[in-house]
Amino acid sequence: MQRNYSSTQAGTTDLFEALFTQRAIRSFKSEHVPDEVLWDVLEAATKAPSGGNLQPWGFLVIRDLGKRRQLGAMLREFVEGNYQFQEMLAAAENDEDPVRRRQVVRARRLFTELEHVPVLIVPCLDQSDMPTDPGLLTGSSVYPAVQNLLLAARGHGLGTVLTTFQAMFEDKFVELFGLPENVKPVALIPLGYPEVKFGPTTRKPVDTVVHWDQWGAIKTR
Amino acid sequence: MQRNYSSTQAGTTDLFEALFTQRAIRSFKSEHVPDEVLWDVLEAATKAPSGGNLQPWGFLVIRDLGKRRQLGAMLREFVEGNYQFQEMLAAAENDEDPVRRRQVVRARRLFTELEHVPVLIVPCLDQSDMPTDPGLLTGSSVYPAVQNLLLAARGHGLGTVLTTFQAMFEDKFVELFGLPENVKPVALIPLGYPEVKFGPTTRKPVDTVVHWDQWGAIKTR
Repeated sequence: MQRNYSSTQAGTTDLFEALFTQRAIRSFKSEHVPDEVLWDVLEAATKAPSGGNLQPWGFLVIRDLGKRRQLGAMLREFVEGNYQFQEMLAAAENDEDPVRRRQVVRARRLFTELEHVPVLIVPCLDQSDMPTDPGLLTGSSVYPAVQNLLLAARGHGLGTVLTTFQAMFEDKFVELFGLPENVKPVALIPLGYPEVKFGPTTRKPVDTVVHWDQWGAIKTR
Repeated sequence: MQRNYSSTQAGTTDLFEALFTQRAIRSFKSEHVPDEVLWDVLEAATKAPSGGNLQPWGFLVIRDLGKRRQLGAMLREFVEGNYQFQEMLAAAENDEDPVRRRQVVRARRLFTELEHVPVLIVPCLDQSDMPTDPGLLTGSSVYPAVQNLLLAARGHGLGTVLTTFQAMFEDKFVELFGLPENVKPVALIPLGYPEVKFGPTTRKPVDTVVHWDQWGAIKTR
């Protein structure tokens, strides 16, 4: 499935449908994700822009069950040992909104059963050519690739959820997967065929977040 | 053009074609970009994920000619006064690669004639609910929206280029557009109908940036 697009080729997934229905999926089937689908999703990620086209990224793809178990154990240990986190989950489980409650049940299962997700993808930033403590703006050279990955997965009928779980135990993570000193993991993305439906998503109305020529100058759509 | 997608509706732009041909466009026609197209592009941006679905973003849309002129003057002043920057441009203009040389000519024109771009979009991060100096990982709550914006623009036949120009004169920028203390501009995106063609893009082969179960474990596609 190597793609070589000219501007006239047609495909099967509508861009806007993907953009408007790509949402966080937290329940996955155990179904195998074929290599060629993964390659296509990963290649779409690499088509994103980056500062000076440096493409300072690497994608760690975790499918080995042993590794997934070790990673799952790290996450479980963090979640169970973190009082604030437990409080937050408990509060959300008692939320008035049934959608929110359902989300939390799924999130908790994801926290405690990460190894059941068939593929975990960890986009990393290679900081070899940049300051050692890159700030917010450096995200412009890696998170566009992450979003391409989520959308391409959506196009293949694969669910994903963008998390930064790895940051909760970054040192252990780095050690387990042998990341070099200059390589920083920036997300942990569970990926698999979804047990639930895609979109629509719940978002603020667009006209409340657009400012015209001056901050605060809002207009109705 | 308010969109209300179900998973069965079909559209007109293929997701993968957009992903694989969306590239930096630096030359624009002066043609007006209709409001309804802008709304659609901006709404697609808001469909991106963000940590805890906080959607900590605002989008400043600059179309006023006076404001564009002021912004253009700020960028010109920075570029002209920056020796390193001039050196970099000069070096690139003498690059062996004709594609690279052409890019730089267009980049220089963009630097000196920013006011000729019909629309400038500045995505901002609202830091009200987060640490005052958010780091790299916070980019996961705003740059996915930025990438959605670039892709939706591509879907409407609009060119964009992801820059962080505003960071070169952030204080002046913040003052000109009245950004509150907690609102940080994270990109400056020229947008308009392109004078040049879309993609394909030049990227490293995907199999050189994917690591399987362990950093450094590369395999051929």
